[in-house]
Amino acid sequence: MSTPSSSDPAAAFLADWAEHTRFGAVEGTNGVERQAASEADGEQRKWFAALLESHGFTVHRDAIGNQFGLLELVPGAPYVLTGSHMDSQPTAGRFDGAYGVMASAHACFRVADELRADPSRARCNLAIVNWFNEEGSRFKPSMMGSSVFTGKLPLADALATRDPRGVSVESALDALGERGDFAGLDVASYAEIHVQQGRSMEEEGVTIGLVNATWAAHKFEFRVRGAQAHSGATAMPDRRDAMLGAARLVVAARELVDEFEPGALHTACGELNAYPNSPVVVASEVQLLLDLRSPSAEVIRAAHASLMSTVERVQREDRVDIEIVAEHSWDQNPYPEAGLELAREVAAELGLPHDRVMTVAGHDSTNMKDAVPTVMLFVPSVDGISHNLDEFTRDEDLVAGLQQMTGVVRRLAAGALAASGATA
Amino acid sequence: MSTPSSSDPAAAFLADWAEHTRFGAVEGTNGVERQAASEADGEQRKWFAALLESHGFTVHRDAIGNQFGLLELVPGAPYVLTGSHMDSQPTAGRFDGAYGVMASAHACFRVADELRADPSRARCNLAIVNWFNEEGSRFKPSMMGSSVFTGKLPLADALATRDPRGVSVESALDALGERGDFAGLDVASYAEIHVQQGRSMEEEGVTIGLVNATWAAHKFEFRVRGAQAHSGATAMPDRRDAMLGAARLVVAARELVDEFEPGALHTACGELNAYPNSPVVVASEVQLLLDLRSPSAEVIRAAHASLMSTVERVQREDRVDIEIVAEHSWDQNPYPEAGLELAREVAAELGLPHDRVMTVAGHDSTNMKDAVPTVMLFVPSVDGISHNLDEFTRDEDLVAGLQQMTGVVRRLAAGALAASGATA
Repeated sequence: MSTPSSSDPAAAFLADWAEHTRFGAVEGTNGVERQAASEADGEQRKWFAALLESHGFTVHRDAIGNQFGLLELVPGAPYVLTGSHMDSQPTAGRFDGAYGVMASAHACFRVADELRADPSRARCNLAIVNWFNEEGSRFKPSMMGSSVFTGKLPLADALATRDPRGVSVESALDALGERGDFAGLDVASYAEIHVQQGRSMEEEGVTIGLVNATWAAHKFEFRVRGAQAHSGATAMPDRRDAMLGAARLVVAARELVDEFEPGALHTACGELNAYPNSPVVVASEVQLLLDLRSPSAEVIRAAHASLMSTVERVQREDRVDIEIVAEHSWDQNPYPEAGLELAREVAAELGLPHDRVMTVAGHDSTNMKDAVPTVMLFVPSVDGISHNLDEFTRDEDLVAGLQQMTGVVRRLAAGALAASGATA
Repeated sequence: MSTPSSSDPAAAFLADWAEHTRFGAVEGTNGVERQAASEADGEQRKWFAALLESHGFTVHRDAIGNQFGLLELVPGAPYVLTGSHMDSQPTAGRFDGAYGVMASAHACFRVADELRADPSRARCNLAIVNWFNEEGSRFKPSMMGSSVFTGKLPLADALATRDPRGVSVESALDALGERGDFAGLDVASYAEIHVQQGRSMEEEGVTIGLVNATWAAHKFEFRVRGAQAHSGATAMPDRRDAMLGAARLVVAARELVDEFEPGALHTACGELNAYPNSPVVVASEVQLLLDLRSPSAEVIRAAHASLMSTVERVQREDRVDIEIVAEHSWDQNPYPEAGLELAREVAAELGLPHDRVMTVAGHDSTNMKDAVPTVMLFVPSVDGISHNLDEFTRDEDLVAGLQQMTGVVRRLAAGALAASGATA
């Protein structure tokens, strides 16, 4: 663990980073498995709390398990909040989320040292956050911690959510001692940094991505209903095969992509569950998640219409019922220009190659930007590999991101962008 | 429970049948859920043991949980064995398997009474069997009990098999007290009756099906491998989506059917499991079961070739690897003519409409016919609904099947078909 006031911030960061990636490490790989409120998530939280305390921050947990490190420099002033999430997908990369928390922490450690040395420059206090359950793989929905913090998701609903084995968020957090009673934080501004989950920055030689918008999206949860039947004996025309109906939707989603310009539409089905899922039974019910994403809301609307006509055809031709159990859609969603301009100035001062970039994935900052002034940054990821054990970002990019985040936190702590009394 | 020597065999059977269908009854339906070695399976086994004992049969369990009721009439003589299975698929019909065990038991009860009254006619002893785990939904493979009994599956392999929650056959049987030490039975002949899992007998007015062969089949377990990726952010050409590859196989299996004459090929995928099966992750691995079935081995060979060319195309176009983890195939598999002729004579004597019929599904008799002289019978099923809560066979057909089975057991007990010292 780095000692306070290490003389080389980059070396101190890399040393702590190397130590942190042990938690949930998947043997024989460079990746991790640290799903929300798992044992590995609990262990890294304890380690992270000790790191925060060793740098003079006090550690708190709120009722949904968000982990905060606070440093009061200006009594009663609002806080610059910065962080990301340390939970991961199953068999995932070690950078996604965790890099942002660790870079935020080290940026705050450095700025804290500067402000302790010259308290007159401080306008805000400093806070670091490790949001609970950003990934949503074990407990749905994703971005749970920041959604509760910003009032978008009721606390009781989040706590009652159960994983596939029936364990609730509440009991999983309690088992780790990670559910607290910290309430309310007067947030002046929010900053987050993340590895890009695509290859454009690497290809274009961009070191710092200034995230200016989230792609538009339409996400569906479908339930395909057929009828249980003997999968060998039942005559083919008598079948109402929910697995077949679901498979047709998965294939149709991929084929939708070819109806548009290259890169204009991303589609996927990542989760599919069949019942009874037995070797010799035609499935009576399959639930699947299907996403459409595009930088263009117009493309989403056209793709949606095309998908709905496929749904109609599959219902008719395969004699299954297809119900939309849930759906969410959003248009292209911009980040505030003031945050972009601040981040651009910092990158220019540091001489770091930078450009505007959109994010396809959601982040906790997607919630925070609707509540407070927000800066969202990316560093490159080799080959854009994401949600994969082989995800990789070079040390030089990790360090450049740390420098950028340090510059951003320094300005925010000095009062840049500060919201007047915004309380999330 | 029927009393011994009930004066009306049909009424006695229907009374016991009504009582038996309570075990594992699915509320609000006419169906049952009684998967192998479940609590409901254990409860009906206890009830069935008491029924057998009340009719003078002694109850034994062997090391794989097959439940036997034995009546020795001719000391040292071999046994006529008859039965089926009482386990079910999830949310299944109440007739599949259970009807065969109950009809066999009541046929034996009646013949036992006759032979007790006139012992000179007895050449064989009587045995009723409730085979363990015919369905294979909880523990694979299906037909587990009869496969171990006939030496086709090693006992240790069967006992070590685990369900999706990690419970072994051995511990599940022990929890019910249903693993015994009964070993060896000198079997003279075997008879089984089952509801048809198709609609041909109902359509053709056939009450007794004389099962003359099993369809040819080729069954695959595929593993489709891609690469985990962010299901939103990853560029479409960069993806290697195992869910997409699997969905293409499911759709291709259905489309294969249209390459042949109507009814010539049945295909299905009843089970599919994806990893990591998370909302925002492109699946890296999907395992699926895919079956081809046909009365014609030639059709199976042509369908197999076509499927393999689809596998090649999907691998190439979708950049996934498709491995055949396991496969089993068999040609059309005949039942012995001597058993068919015996059953035909009984049906003709009883004046029951009868005809030869093939079975698409496997049965425990598929194992037994390779070891001993065997008779396999069907009664009709309304609309051929199978592996479904709404499966239904009319009382008049159940009773006709009981009469037929009684006639068959009577002849077998008098020495018809008797194998000379066949020991399974």
